[in-house]
This record gives sequence, C-alpha cells and structure tokens, in this order.
Amino acid sequence: MPEPFSFMLSKTDGAARRGEIVTPHGRVQTPAFMPVGTQGTVKGLTPDIVRETGAEIVLGNTYHLMLRPGAERVAALGGLHQFMQWPLPILTDSGGFQVMSLSELRKLSEDGVTFRSHLDGAMVALSPERAVEIQALLGADIAMQLDECLRLPASLDEIKRAMELSLRWAERCKRAFESRAREGYALFGIVQGGDVMNLRETSARELSGMAFQGYAIGGLAVGEPQAVMLKIVEETAPMLPAQCPRYLMGVGTPHDMLEAVARGIDMFDCVLPTRNGRHGMAFTRFGPINLANARHAADPRPLDAESSHPAARTYSRAYLHHLTKAGEMLGAVLLSTVNLAYYQELMAGLRAAIAAGSFAAFRAETLARWDQGDIAPL
Amino acid sequence: MPEPFSFMLSKTDGAARRGEIVTPHGRVQTPAFMPVGTQGTVKGLTPDIVRETGAEIVLGNTYHLMLRPGAERVAALGGLHQFMQWPLPILTDSGGFQVMSLSELRKLSEDGVTFRSHLDGAMVALSPERAVEIQALLGADIAMQLDECLRLPASLDEIKRAMELSLRWAERCKRAFESRAREGYALFGIVQGGDVMNLRETSARELSGMAFQGYAIGGLAVGEPQAVMLKIVEETAPMLPAQCPRYLMGVGTPHDMLEAVARGIDMFDCVLPTRNGRHGMAFTRFGPINLANARHAADPRPLDAESSHPAARTYSRAYLHHLTKAGEMLGAVLLSTVNLAYYQELMAGLRAAIAAGSFAAFRAETLARWDQGDIAPL
Repeated sequence: MPEPFSFMLSKTDGAARRGEIVTPHGRVQTPAFMPVGTQGTVKGLTPDIVRETGAEIVLGNTYHLMLRPGAERVAALGGLHQFMQWPLPILTDSGGFQVMSLSELRKLSEDGVTFRSHLDGAMVALSPERAVEIQALLGADIAMQLDECLRLPASLDEIKRAMELSLRWAERCKRAFESRAREGYALFGIVQGGDVMNLRETSARELSGMAFQGYAIGGLAVGEPQAVMLKIVEETAPMLPAQCPRYLMGVGTPHDMLEAVARGIDMFDCVLPTRNGRHGMAFTRFGPINLANARHAADPRPLDAESSHPAARTYSRAYLHHLTKAGEMLGAVLLSTVNLAYYQELMAGLRAAIAAGSFAAFRAETLARWDQGDIAPL
Repeated sequence: MPEPFSFMLSKTDGAARRGEIVTPHGRVQTPAFMPVGTQGTVKGLTPDIVRETGAEIVLGNTYHLMLRPGAERVAALGGLHQFMQWPLPILTDSGGFQVMSLSELRKLSEDGVTFRSHLDGAMVALSPERAVEIQALLGADIAMQLDECLRLPASLDEIKRAMELSLRWAERCKRAFESRAREGYALFGIVQGGDVMNLRETSARELSGMAFQGYAIGGLAVGEPQAVMLKIVEETAPMLPAQCPRYLMGVGTPHDMLEAVARGIDMFDCVLPTRNGRHGMAFTRFGPINLANARHAADPRPLDAESSHPAARTYSRAYLHHLTKAGEMLGAVLLSTVNLAYYQELMAGLRAAIAAGSFAAFRAETLARWDQGDIAPL
C-alpha cells in the first residue's frame, strides 16, 4: 500500500508557507513549481533533464491526453508515469480550462460539456464523472475536479452561473472519486468566481465543506492585470483550509509566484519557462534575458555563473544567441532547461527563506536583483 | 604539448580494419561514426546525450559556421570545442560539399570559390588557404582540404577538371596547414574523380604523395546506386596508404557502413540518424522502424530490449508513436538519440568482430537480422 496522500505544513512566515506533500509516487516540497507536460512530455526535455532541474512533480493534461493517445490507451500501457517514464508525482488538470481555450465548438449542460476536438473535429463529451475516470486511468497522483472556465470579461450573472455549476460538478467529482477508493490519491477542488470576491468567497466556503485534499484557485492568469490576480489570491487563500495545499493554476512569471507565495500559495504550474525558452527567452536571477538580441552575439559569459544548474553556468550567451538565431532545436532544449532550473531555484530559495523566517528579506533581495537587471553587456 | 596526431592499426580481418586515432582532444576507436553537428550542435541533443550514445568525435561544418556565427567569432569565444561544450575530438568539413549543395550562385576559379550565402545573400569567398584558416580558427582536431564537389551526372571532362583542381587545392591546403605548425592537429586529403576509376586512381596516388595524415573518399553518397558507391570504395581504399585512416564522407545507412568497413573504411559521418529521427524513423538491430505507422500505437515494447542504450530499452513504441504523431520535440530528441546509439552500437560490434577475427560472421548475422526485420506486431 502506498502512503496516504498528506500535506504537512512545517513553517509559516507571514502568509507564506513551507510544507511537504506526500503522494504515492513520492514527496513534493512546497512551495512547488510543476513543469507542464501537456501531451505526455515536458516539451523537448527527457525525464532525466526535467528531474535535474529540481522538479519533483509535473503536470499532465486530461484534455490533450483523452484526445491523443486516449486515457484507456495510456492505462493499457501502464499509466502516465510508465508511458512518459516519469517516476515522480503527476498532477493532471481536468480539462476545464482547455475546453474553454482550445475547442471551438462546445455545448455546456448541467451534465457536462461536449466539444469539438481541435485535432480531428470529432465531438467529445466530458462530464465530472468522466474527468475523474480519465485522471484515474492516467494514474494521476493528484486529480483536479472538472470546472467551467469562463473567458473574461463576462457578466456577473455568467460568472455566478459558472461558479455554481462548478460547485455542483465539484460534488459529483468528489463522489466519483470516492467511489473509486484509490488509496493515497488525491482530488483537488477549484475555486471559481472570476474577479467577484463574494462569488470567490461562496466558492471557497462551499468547496471547503466538501473536504477535498487540496484546493486550487482557477480562472486566473487569463489576461487580467497582475494586481487583480494578486488581490483575488490574497483574499481567497485565507478562506481555504490551512491544513491543505493551495494551488494557483496556470501562474506564472517569477514575480507572480513570489507575490503569490507571499499570499499563501503552495503550488504553481505554467508554460512560460518552456514556451518562452522555445522563443529565445531566459529567466535568470537578473530578470529575463532575450537571447535573440544581437548584443549577446559575442558575449562569452554564461547566463548565471552562480546558478545551481550546469546549463546556466557553462554555455555562453553567444552560443545560446547563435542557437536561437539559427533556429536550432538545442536552443529550445537548453533555454527550457535553464528556465525550469531557475523556477526551481526560486522555489528552493523561497522554501529556505520561509523555513528560516526570512521571507521578507528574500523577497526584497529577489525583487532588487530583478530590478537591477542583467549586468552590463561587454 | 598535446600528443601528436596518430593512427594505429591494431588488427585487420580481410580488408576490414580495427584501429585508433589519437588527437589533441582524445582518442577515437575505429571504425568510427561521427554524428553531424552542422551549426555547432548535433540537432536537438546536448553534448552529454551525444556522449552517452558512445560518440567519441563529432563533425562540424566550415560552410555553416563561417557564415554564422563566423570563424573569427568562434575563435574569440575559445574555439568550437568550448563554444559547443564538446570536449572530445572534432573533425570539420571544408565547405566544398555545402558550396555545391546549398549555395545557389557560385563562381569557381583556380583561386577558389565565391558563393552567395544561403542565409543573407552576401557574396562570400572561400579559398584553400581560407578553408584551412577557418578550420584552425574553429580548432578542429581534423581539418579537411577544400575540394570541388560536382553534381552528378557530369561529363568525363568535368569530372577530370574538378579532380585535378581538387588536387591543386590539396597541395595549397597542405602548404597552408604546415605553415600554421599546429602540433597534433591533422589535415586529410579528399579523393575525387566521380565514378571514373582511373581518375580516382590518379587522385588517390597524387594525394598519397602529399603525405596527408588521413584520406577521405569524397563525391559519393550523392544519389548514385549503392553498388556503384561500394565498387568505387572497394577499388579506391587499397590505393590509399594503409597506415592512415580512411574516411568515407557523408555515408550512410547501416548497410552502407557495414559494406564500406568490409572494404577498408575507418570513418563515417552522416545526417541520417538525426534527420530520420526527426521524421519518426528508428534505426535498430532489426532494421528501420517507422514510428509514425499506426501499428505501433498500442505496442508496449521498447525498440530493442537488448540495446546498450537506455532510451531504446525503456520508452515504449506506443509512446514514441504518440510523440511522433503529436509532433512533439521530444520524439525527435529520443529517436535521434536512439539512432545515434544504434550507429555507435554497430561500430562497436564491427570493432569487436574485427579484433576477434570474426568479421565475416558478424556481417552475416547483422545482415540476417536486418533482413528478418522487426519482430511481429502484437
């Protein structure tokens, strides 16, 4: 029998939290960043490379994997861990967000959502029960409830309707999940309610009453200003059970994460480090560096001589510029690696600072280093 | 001082040869396959991944690197080894082949070749002396003479003229190389003469008189039938000094290499393992496998459970099929890795067989396994 799912909060510093999640595939130190492995791969990177960045958990996508290769196929092949050769924990998104962002035609009902596959145009149905089943077939250590994500701006009525539907779906997901009785696996609820705080409050209170193993804040990072996002996080996080992990979905930049940790968030996922890496952008302790810029063409310096990751310490900016300009795949591979390593380094720094009770100083130093920017070009 | 360049022939079995090349950046066991790192990277693969396939030397391209980022730039950044973080030997092609295959407008004279860059349309000059200078700036352990490569078919007169010009350029390269007096570095001559054996013979004899450190057979693998290529190799190889390495440029498939080793070739380079890997094709002990084929979609077997490389032993064919169909970069990375590993495994098998005096048996077994093909689908 695997260990049961658990979350242990070891230290708080203001609202910032240091903890540990236990799952059937291992432990995750929080605050944690989860690299995104949408289609059963963190884009361009072998599992070894992902692990060497310090990642302890990755995210998979119900929406993509149900369409290709199919959840039953993945299950027959031994589950997602075996399929992608990732032995550590996996959290899977439920598909709610991708149904909104990727499928053109969708029909929503109380029962669930029917949508046109972006791959082959086939009509596909997804219900709360099926979302839970798919995530169980994939073997996700942490599954997410199906929710309805809205494109913003939306009317107050629409936001309220979607939040309430998501609550009813949360209950159905919970029931479906419990009927499977998979020891050690977890299901998280997702707080919705747009930018309307009393709706967020209702959502958080109702979900808390359902006793999920963890809680996500969804429907953010969809184009709203950072201040709006942080205000909602700041007010929503304290409404969630303190003894459970809190996951801010789809966020974000290093600055977003630093500020969200300051407001009590434990988990993040985001495509930025890999997507921007594929487009020549490096995240570093000195802020972002655009390697496509000609000023790097003759620069022998590494991205960060003091990085914990060899890729950031060894390759010259000139080489990374060359790979980027030449459209070489290795540029995407190395910058994705460097960026994931920086995200993990930031998380490790946050964890150490919270544990030491020096979060405020760490935050100030980190912000100052980003502001100061990259050291002057040669 | 680095060790001087040397080649030691330790065993022959028929025409097949087992040897070792010593260079300033390390030793290379022959027969050897050199992965192609055209633009300062083996496409998609980190240097660690390339080393883990068993590669002891990679190939770089004068033509590409002189245009971007520029030979002087690479030299200022510490040379190509430092630039691409590849600590082992590098052989650089001289650019003759790419001038023929990639640049649209080119003007040939006794002095050299002027061509239009395929990148920005600028006119660029390359002479024998400049080709040697560029390769020295790159820091190539083994440099190649500049030659004139013809598109075939060509008239006898044209083939003769190009072969003779290549001989005069060989002499000029040799002089330029010796004037640099770089201890331990090597320059190879290139036999030309198309499919005309008496021209190949003249070329081989004249080059041998110039005492290069090694000899390449060029102008093959440009679309001629395999039988023609092998006949030229079979007749040309014995004309070259037995105490020097023999390099068959741009070749080839596993079968091409097996047959060329049987005819006395020591070194190969080819884009096939990486290019075909990017297009869903795996080279294995059972012959090529096209992972895009739907018959692999549910196949849990690895490509080769007995491969010496973990990537061929661990990932299922179903997963590799999925990555290929989804156009995921990791598919290109893993199949390029698997293919380079198989090429190295084949070379290791050839070396062991020659050393043991069992080359004929190894050849027969290898051919039979390829012919037998992949084991039946599930």
